[in-house]
Amino acid sequence: MKIVVDAMGGDHGPVVTVPGAIEAVNDYNIEIILTGDQEKIQKELDKYSYSKERIKIIHCSEEISNEDKPVAAIRRKKDSSMVVGLNLVKTKEADAIISAGNTGALLAGGLFILGRIKGIDRPALAPVYPTTEGVAVLIDGGANADCRPRNFLEFGIMGDVYASKVIGIQNPNVCIVSIGVEEGKGNEITKESYKLCKEKARFNFGGNVEARDIPSGYADVIICDGFTGNVILKLTEGIASTIFGALKEEFTKNILRKLGAVILKSGLKNFKKRFDYTEYGGAPFLGVQGNLIKAHGSSNAKAIKNAIRQAKTFVENNVVEHIEMEIKELGEDGLD
Amino acid sequence: MKIVVDAMGGDHGPVVTVPGAIEAVNDYNIEIILTGDQEKIQKELDKYSYSKERIKIIHCSEEISNEDKPVAAIRRKKDSSMVVGLNLVKTKEADAIISAGNTGALLAGGLFILGRIKGIDRPALAPVYPTTEGVAVLIDGGANADCRPRNFLEFGIMGDVYASKVIGIQNPNVCIVSIGVEEGKGNEITKESYKLCKEKARFNFGGNVEARDIPSGYADVIICDGFTGNVILKLTEGIASTIFGALKEEFTKNILRKLGAVILKSGLKNFKKRFDYTEYGGAPFLGVQGNLIKAHGSSNAKAIKNAIRQAKTFVENNVVEHIEMEIKELGEDGLD
Repeated sequence: MKIVVDAMGGDHGPVVTVPGAIEAVNDYNIEIILTGDQEKIQKELDKYSYSKERIKIIHCSEEISNEDKPVAAIRRKKDSSMVVGLNLVKTKEADAIISAGNTGALLAGGLFILGRIKGIDRPALAPVYPTTEGVAVLIDGGANADCRPRNFLEFGIMGDVYASKVIGIQNPNVCIVSIGVEEGKGNEITKESYKLCKEKARFNFGGNVEARDIPSGYADVIICDGFTGNVILKLTEGIASTIFGALKEEFTKNILRKLGAVILKSGLKNFKKRFDYTEYGGAPFLGVQGNLIKAHGSSNAKAIKNAIRQAKTFVENNVVEHIEMEIKELGEDGLD
Repeated sequence: MKIVVDAMGGDHGPVVTVPGAIEAVNDYNIEIILTGDQEKIQKELDKYSYSKERIKIIHCSEEISNEDKPVAAIRRKKDSSMVVGLNLVKTKEADAIISAGNTGALLAGGLFILGRIKGIDRPALAPVYPTTEGVAVLIDGGANADCRPRNFLEFGIMGDVYASKVIGIQNPNVCIVSIGVEEGKGNEITKESYKLCKEKARFNFGGNVEARDIPSGYADVIICDGFTGNVILKLTEGIASTIFGALKEEFTKNILRKLGAVILKSGLKNFKKRFDYTEYGGAPFLGVQGNLIKAHGSSNAKAIKNAIRQAKTFVENNVVEHIEMEIKELGEDGLD
């Protein structure tokens, strides 16, 4: 199995992508292709001992930065680490790609270079959301700000495949984020989507989930438009960081409290770990013709390694084929 | 000043509304009218010593429950504690009303009985959102699931009046919740609303706020549709309760950790207090012709008292008149 790592992507570039790739090759039976600046990548590789047969560099003269306009960057920077990497997946020279680079560009590249799975109108980002029960899949995490009911049904199908085939949740409870659990509660789009899912879904459609019940793991797959998904993810991040900040402030106010905090150190560490995105790798962009994982821009080597592991699981479990099959089953209903 | 308390509203009814009203009368220079079942209210009143001149009961033979359909309940239950209370505000026999009852019914009652302020298309709920800086006003907290740009502008106007005149924030930073700070980021409705606010706002329009920056208090007034507002409020509630649960679990795992937690008790208490809704009273329904405060359904006596204090501040600061004036300034631009 060959996995492409966009070595230049993310806030830290080769400094984290290279050790992440090396760790992955050490632990898993895979080969890695690093796309990007040969010299910079080699400089990082030279810091470690690694299997030269299983890590290959493809030199690229360009790089897509976070400031680049997504569509223009994909069209013009043909020799960028991202575009070259996507083309390797397109031509089947590689089985999957992970990138921590410009999200908009990566999504545009997924759509234009890999293309959509037949029958999928809107591919979507599907990050995992940590819950007290484990994790849930949130879809769409931000690729499509405005959606129509058909898209919600597609999100349900793709989220269900991901949750069941990759994460291993049996018969996932797939729910739409809304402002009440009853069928009649919601805004226009969620109410219409509820009806459509109730009628057409082959997955286990559990109706609506209120945002209050997301953190406790009521739903295994959380369907929403990309605007709402982004609000949920970013707000969670903001609240977690605010709460950790407030705790730290309270726990360092005097010497006695500092002592208490020392006693609780391992408890606090466990607690923080539950909210640590690096544990979960990246977010797949589901619905395109290939395995594409978006890693967090601020990924460290461990997060890159976990994203590679995730890409491997996608390949092993034929996620693209399963989505194709599920959509085909629907297509005969004339939804296109 | 006379404030109506819907004595039957909320999960606990007179058991909390009566002591809440008594505490408010003891602390503030106001009179209270309790609407509801005379016998039940008197039974609670008899448990306390209170100023008989300043607390009056108006008996009502009906009650609106959480199971009642909002519009039907308001139309049919003419002698309910909620409808009678709203009519007292309508006829100016009282200056404000607070209720912890059926939210949908209270909003419908506000619209049908009190009526809208001229020029306001969509009155909105405006709860406060606790931040590390103090509080922000979130508007709309759930009254209007689907909105148009004009409504966002109205929310900005009303939120600005509330934040500046009642909460005392000078020149509040009024922002639209979106998925990026740039003008072009968002969904259709937020992008259009951005343009409209930029063009028409007399308040301090600060552009977009990302959900990640809400908890830190970047925005003083947070504009969004009622669907997004509900998601933000409920998710915050869910995350806070999950985090408190996880902390408790970690901190009681063994005897040493329990000791650590005892040392940190006051710190943990302060920390929890920051997220305690009872501190903040209720959410005003802004844009109707009268002062209407929705208290949380699970309010205790302290929350009821704080909602009464809040109602008093609304009356003292002529919130309705200020909104009327601000909307009038806009009306000449032909927005209606």
